[in-house]
Amino acid sequence: MAEITIKDIAEKCGVGIGTVSRAINNHPNINSETRERVLAVIKEMGYIPNNSARNLKRTDAKCIAVLIKGIINPFFSTAVQTIEAGIQKAGYSMVMQHVEAYENEVEVALQLIKEKRLRGIIFLGGAFVHDKKMLDMMSVPFIFSTIGGAANEDRKQTYSNVSVDDRAESKKMVRYLLELGHRDIAILTEDVSASSVGQLRLEGYWEAFTEKEIAVNEKLIWKIDDKEEPYSMENGYAATKKLLESGEKFTALFAISDFLAIGACRALREAGLKIPEDVSVAGFDGIAFGEYFNPQLTTIRQPIEEMSEKTVQLLLDVIEEKCGHEHLVFPARLTIRESTAPCNK
Amino acid sequence: MAEITIKDIAEKCGVGIGTVSRAINNHPNINSETRERVLAVIKEMGYIPNNSARNLKRTDAKCIAVLIKGIINPFFSTAVQTIEAGIQKAGYSMVMQHVEAYENEVEVALQLIKEKRLRGIIFLGGAFVHDKKMLDMMSVPFIFSTIGGAANEDRKQTYSNVSVDDRAESKKMVRYLLELGHRDIAILTEDVSASSVGQLRLEGYWEAFTEKEIAVNEKLIWKIDDKEEPYSMENGYAATKKLLESGEKFTALFAISDFLAIGACRALREAGLKIPEDVSVAGFDGIAFGEYFNPQLTTIRQPIEEMSEKTVQLLLDVIEEKCGHEHLVFPARLTIRESTAPCNK
Repeated sequence: MAEITIKDIAEKCGVGIGTVSRAINNHPNINSETRERVLAVIKEMGYIPNNSARNLKRTDAKCIAVLIKGIINPFFSTAVQTIEAGIQKAGYSMVMQHVEAYENEVEVALQLIKEKRLRGIIFLGGAFVHDKKMLDMMSVPFIFSTIGGAANEDRKQTYSNVSVDDRAESKKMVRYLLELGHRDIAILTEDVSASSVGQLRLEGYWEAFTEKEIAVNEKLIWKIDDKEEPYSMENGYAATKKLLESGEKFTALFAISDFLAIGACRALREAGLKIPEDVSVAGFDGIAFGEYFNPQLTTIRQPIEEMSEKTVQLLLDVIEEKCGHEHLVFPARLTIRESTAPCNK
Repeated sequence: MAEITIKDIAEKCGVGIGTVSRAINNHPNINSETRERVLAVIKEMGYIPNNSARNLKRTDAKCIAVLIKGIINPFFSTAVQTIEAGIQKAGYSMVMQHVEAYENEVEVALQLIKEKRLRGIIFLGGAFVHDKKMLDMMSVPFIFSTIGGAANEDRKQTYSNVSVDDRAESKKMVRYLLELGHRDIAILTEDVSASSVGQLRLEGYWEAFTEKEIAVNEKLIWKIDDKEEPYSMENGYAATKKLLESGEKFTALFAISDFLAIGACRALREAGLKIPEDVSVAGFDGIAFGEYFNPQLTTIRQPIEEMSEKTVQLLLDVIEEKCGHEHLVFPARLTIRESTAPCNK
């Protein structure tokens, strides 16, 4: 029989989860009749409140740290939620640490290991190239999540990673734009020196053009500012304004993250350009905002929930020595929505 | 003389912050010429890399916990960034803990105090009413941030809080909508039993109608689902769909959070309604996405950066016994953008 959850109790009582929680916690804002009814059902169904279960587990102090680079990006909010749920379900507690764009995340991790009794570390976002000496200093298992790229064979034994194939997925998007008839496709990307997914996605852009034997106009490769939060709406907005000021013609714009694409849309709108009639806009990641945006954003949707679940599971398996390090690549999906259309120029 | 920062170095060298960081960290992706130039400037200006400074401080293990209810809400992302910066600047480290909507945040805090050597606790989001007995059990200073409401005098000595006047600010928004000629103003809010800002904002709605001696159509008071993440776009979308299906007429919709408002906009668009021509939409919070949204969202902008800075400063002052508990109310701003217009029905 499946474990009874708070949702089962709520359903049985015909009330919300919050009401059940308030009954359990003896919250002032619940009338006593409802409270008694809920408690009776809890007793009847043999439900053990989640709080107690969770707290019991948490005192074990088996702790996993999650280091996030780019905390303002909603792409990572979804990941964090899924990761936290997985960590708690396994009886571990989670420490979350924000890493600044200019900090070296492995250095931050090494420091954290010194201070806390950690069992494992999850890196969310950041570079895909790291100094081997520093990686070798890591004394607990770790995994790079949403970060793929060019791992050397000799480093692969020291960590796991879960990602999409950023280069191939980016190529898929640019190929789609080329097939819509676009030739002047601007790209908002990161400086190559960041060794980030931005670099891989830029490589995919080049590959799509090369495959179709179409020349790239390099003036349309636009580097976003090397700021505190590179993948922000503000940065997408600022970069697109500069691109427009440059006078370089383009009929499509591909931003290497949805958040950048949304910023780009604002700059285009302010310049009186219609999306997709005047400019097609595409992003990458598949954040929920993109679906709620007007126009709905065409994007490469990463299966972030599945990737995050697998991240936790794989790390736990490595911690518990059930398996060695693995390097998993998930398929992403070209998600065509309202912001892209055939080129009409 | 002001402390030299990484930004000063970057400016002086004419490179980005990331490049300076890569120079300091001996990152593989930087050419040796640039690296040497950056290191020379660092030496010349007497800059002490932030990483070292930060790590030195962090080992003190003076720790402040931040408990967040509603982590998917981007309103809190901004708060967390500011709070983390403040905590680190003061030489403390930060532990972040996500609290489920159905959990009692004070209970989670009490557990956390048992496990970790905490110096203080910041609550972000959650209820404004708490059990006195549980509050009395809290053995470290704590502060409720972005949570105002009805503190009893006797409880006020046990904690600090920083918020806007949710009731008055909400009243301001509804008064503005009434003055645009709207009478059938739907509101997306939370169930009263949650004792959340939703309740206070609903009270402000009532007060605005009462002040103008206009009757409220209670069928337009729409409670969002008591789900895992109440203030989500998904919930705003679902609630507005139900509202539309109810057949009740409305010319304006006020959602008690921007995130809900954005969800509402999608449901309205799908029903073929134009914003603001057919329905005016207003939110609350002032998240950055509202400014990038199309149409730009009218909202009540909370000064979240200032509130977050003050949150940290006040908590530190209490920890260091420089002052007693305080209860600060910040002014918010009615921010009129594109999503609202005079009633034309």
